Amino acid sequence: MARVTLNELNAAFDADFVLALDGIYEHAPFVAEAAAPHRPYPTVAALHEALMGAVRARSVEERIAFVRNHPDLAGKAARAGDMAPASVSEQAGLGLDRLSDEEYTRFERLNAAHRERFGFPFIVCVRRLTRDAVLDAFERRLANDPATELATALDEIGYITRLRLVEKVDGPGLPQVFGRLSTHVLDTHRGGPAEGVRLALYQVARSGRTKLGEAVTNADGRTDTPLLSSAPLRIGVYELVFEVGDYFARRGLDLPGQPFLGEVPLRFGISEPEGHYHVPLLVTPWSFSTYRGS
Amino acid sequence: MARVTLNELNAAFDADFVLALDGIYEHAPFVAEAAAPHRPYPTVAALHEALMGAVRARSVEERIAFVRNHPDLAGKAARAGDMAPASVSEQAGLGLDRLSDEEYTRFERLNAAHRERFGFPFIVCVRRLTRDAVLDAFERRLANDPATELATALDEIGYITRLRLVEKVDGPGLPQVFGRLSTHVLDTHRGGPAEGVRLALYQVARSGRTKLGEAVTNADGRTDTPLLSSAPLRIGVYELVFEVGDYFARRGLDLPGQPFLGEVPLRFGISEPEGHYHVPLLVTPWSFSTYRGS
Amino acid sequence: MARVTLNELNAAFDADFVLALDGIYEHAPFVAEAAAPHRPYPTVAALHEALMGAVRARSVEERIAFVRNHPDLAGKAARAGDMAPASVSEQAGLGLDRLSDEEYTRFERLNAAHRERFGFPFIVCVRRLTRDAVLDAFERRLANDPATELATALDEIGYITRLRLVEKVDGPGLPQVFGRLSTHVLDTHRGGPAEGVRLALYQVARSGRTKLGEAVTNADGRTDTPLLSSAPLRIGVYELVFEVGDYFARRGLDLPGQPFLGEVPLRFGISEPEGHYHVPLLVTPWSFSTYRGS
Amino acid sequence: MARVTLNELNAAFDADFVLALDGIYEHAPFVAEAAAPHRPYPTVAALHEALMGAVRARSVEERIAFVRNHPDLAGKAARAGDMAPASVSEQAGLGLDRLSDEEYTRFERLNAAHRERFGFPFIVCVRRLTRDAVLDAFERRLANDPATELATALDEIGYITRLRLVEKVDGPGLPQVFGRLSTHVLDTHRGGPAEGVRLALYQVARSGRTKLGEAVTNADGRTDTPLLSSAPLRIGVYELVFEVGDYFARRGLDLPGQPFLGEVPLRFGISEPEGHYHVPLLVTPWSFSTYRGS
Repeated sequence: MARVTLNELNAAFDADFVLALDGIYEHAPFVAEAAAPHRPYPTVAALHEALMGAVRARSVEERIAFVRNHPDLAGKAARAGDMAPASVSEQAGLGLDRLSDEEYTRFERLNAAHRERFGFPFIVCVRRLTRDAVLDAFERRLANDPATELATALDEIGYITRLRLVEKVDGPGLPQVFGRLSTHVLDTHRGGPAEGVRLALYQVARSGRTKLGEAVTNADGRTDTPLLSSAPLRIGVYELVFEVGDYFARRGLDLPGQPFLGEVPLRFGISEPEGHYHVPLLVTPWSFSTYRGS
Repeated sequence: MARVTLNELNAAFDADFVLALDGIYEHAPFVAEAAAPHRPYPTVAALHEALMGAVRARSVEERIAFVRNHPDLAGKAARAGDMAPASVSEQAGLGLDRLSDEEYTRFERLNAAHRERFGFPFIVCVRRLTRDAVLDAFERRLANDPATELATALDEIGYITRLRLVEKVDGPGLPQVFGRLSTHVLDTHRGGPAEGVRLALYQVARSGRTKLGEAVTNADGRTDTPLLSSAPLRIGVYELVFEVGDYFARRGLDLPGQPFLGEVPLRFGISEPEGHYHVPLLVTPWSFSTYRGS
Repeated sequence: MARVTLNELNAAFDADFVLALDGIYEHAPFVAEAAAPHRPYPTVAALHEALMGAVRARSVEERIAFVRNHPDLAGKAARAGDMAPASVSEQAGLGLDRLSDEEYTRFERLNAAHRERFGFPFIVCVRRLTRDAVLDAFERRLANDPATELATALDEIGYITRLRLVEKVDGPGLPQVFGRLSTHVLDTHRGGPAEGVRLALYQVARSGRTKLGEAVTNADGRTDTPLLSSAPLRIGVYELVFEVGDYFARRGLDLPGQPFLGEVPLRFGISEPEGHYHVPLLVTPWSFSTYRGS
Repeated sequence: MARVTLNELNAAFDADFVLALDGIYEHAPFVAEAAAPHRPYPTVAALHEALMGAVRARSVEERIAFVRNHPDLAGKAARAGDMAPASVSEQAGLGLDRLSDEEYTRFERLNAAHRERFGFPFIVCVRRLTRDAVLDAFERRLANDPATELATALDEIGYITRLRLVEKVDGPGLPQVFGRLSTHVLDTHRGGPAEGVRLALYQVARSGRTKLGEAVTNADGRTDTPLLSSAPLRIGVYELVFEVGDYFARRGLDLPGQPFLGEVPLRFGISEPEGHYHVPLLVTPWSFSTYRGS
């Protein structure tokens, strides 16, 4: 999809500006209308702040009405095909359009509880969370007081619309939406990078783990491309598994047939979807360590 | 079962000595008969060495005949109830008496291949290996030359009979048959032992993992009893899983809702069934390391 | 010096009890007199608590007068031979009886400043600190408010008299006055203890470092006796230096002529004189780590 | 000094080519003369290989005569002002022109022993070694057999002339003569880079240590410029000292007045003068580790 430029948006007639941003804030043209007179915006980030400012300037009742216009998560609107196109594809990314009946029932129950308690649907930027993390957040946020939950819903709409804006508008000062996961294998037995270590990355869910990708370390002990580099990473639990036993066997060391270290799993959580996670492995045949690096 | 003492064995008539050791060497009274005249033995270990010496003194043909008197692993004898009682219980310990038809067929195929290549059954001290490790050894040893495989079979009979002897005879100089697995959790964020960390020990097989036990660390960061302390440990792959996220949450640290370290698995192999494996965890909310300690 | 037993103290006439404890609280027989009627004491620790309680029960003025009866640190009394014998030997332990003129002047200046600000001498249990730590405490405590400094002086008298009591009285429930420093060298290149590593322990002062002792690791990678095990350790800075380069050279590894790790110093501070400091070294030819262990 | 370009050298008359390279090989115009006809050279490295090839093509006697034309290290020629200018400045870099009488005598003794044993002076590329490393190499190489020592002398002349060539000639394919030392401080207590840690780099000699520089870590836990980045690093022992205690104190952690970690020294050796040494520090208030990274 060809993106419009910030320059074009800054120069457009008000009506065209509003039209160009249609679909970023669902069923809420008032947001773009309020931001239009304050153009030009020097950066895309400044434009997004102005849009969110227009939402936050509204009264509590208006903000609740605005949030109410969003669809339930994995709800009837999804099944009935009655959602904004952006919402459809975002919810599909987590498989929320392919729930089992049992899962659908669980979401229905949580949605109902949320609406009953707060008077508006549960809003979350699903592209920033794994499915388990969405469910955890859903249950945890039911304990919020109404003001906190309204603020949280607006924060999540901020995340959602920031991503939509970055995909629609090109220009200087794009907000930081890209996270990154990298690794590095150091062989502290030999005193240098470990080359040729096969590794796999998994997402770990309560229902099991899913392989996200595989790689082999290069001469510098790193992977040629980051393990994850999407917009953004998903809050959740991950596991890197390194084939350390094979690596040391290839080095020809005199090690037991059943090595002390064969497959080395490193399990870790991601909580900052826009952050850089560097998860290195320092390893000998008899020891290893890891840390969140930079 | 009340054990006979080494003193009693040393003082007994030859025939009673042979009778007392019946069942340690299957269908082979000649072993005890050869060792009887050289009494007294100062230690149980010396007695066992003398018994194995009696086997190894035989000609190659006699040694092959001796090995041939042992049952197939997970074979027809097991199904037909035609094994020495000690073999029955040892094979049962690995579940070799409860194989699926597919597994039974695999063992039959391996047994047949082994007999065809070497002229005697595959012998392994099943109490020293996990099921995966038994299968790995079975396939690996098919590549042996006949002399190496005969020597390996006698070594394994040495392990088998040493365990049987220790259970039947009490006295000074018992051979070392006990392995031990221990852990220790150090909180290097706080600079002291980590108390109250829940942990679980699993055996990791190709077909999945089996929980062997659970524990909680005490004020010294250790478990009150060793994690494993049996006779002996089983060669294979294990996983210790530490509930590090819960521990740091209880300490009240300001950590992300999705912590970097929640469940920390340490996967490691055991290759010395009679050895001491100390597998500590040094951990902060953002890093951990382990090593084979002592 | 033969110690009196707690039983004997519990059974003695009041006057003999007071006489037996003479010298523990300098020029203050009232302390023992106040504790005498409450005998018997079940433990030496309980006796010491009662003695300190007798001091703390006094009015502020009386407590100040009590503290005033103690000699200046490294002061005229020391030079003039006018101190209680216990104070003489304690101050000598730090070399406070052998100060250069410049050092003596510095102590005089600090003593004078302390007396002027608080009206009583600076009290510190010199057996629990290095000389640098004494000077640091001296300067830091000049910033205390008077009530805090009086409480601190009594705490220090508590440490002083606890040590004196333990040396004079034998019996159950001796207070914990012994600290301990130990180490352990793990060779994580080989996966076992590092045997035969020469190491030296130094005390690090601003004026240079002093060797306190040397050792060689045994087959378990430890020293046969603790590095320090006195009553108590001294608050201060220490350095353990391990001859790691020689150790790996003896193992015959193919390492550069100028090894990456030759002498490995670990510098650390001790702040708990009665604590256990375990300072291990995990080392390969290309990496090392340490931590406060337990 | 303006450098000549490889293009200019490739295009020059033979005599001008030889003149331009004068001083790189001391008192040996035959080297450049032999390389001149094989021009053009595609890279400076290829030119250097051709020059060294011209030396190595000579007979043993000629090679010995060539080596004999080099001055003694720290010898009479240095005192008498009778050395090639390049040698003068190279030897001055190590302070070999400012020896005490005792040191001068030691060098004289070693030079004499070397000449007696091998018939030519001890040659070493002094810019690649610390003074201690020069002395170590001097004594170690006295044990060489003559052929090995002659080859070693030519290797060292290779290092010397490679450095001189790089300084005199600009062009494509410069040989790798630059080493690099860098560090990185990770605060694994906080889970991020440690900013604002003061650190100093020392060269450690038997006679004491010399400060080479100081730095403060930036927001990424690194120094803004490499700690060393010269042509080349010197083989020898170094120490990085990190002011870890001050750093954690500024973070406001509740730590003992005498912290467990205050100044943390990391002592390490450099054996590859043209290599990259990355020596990071992973640190909490209670633990630290380091390794040769990449």
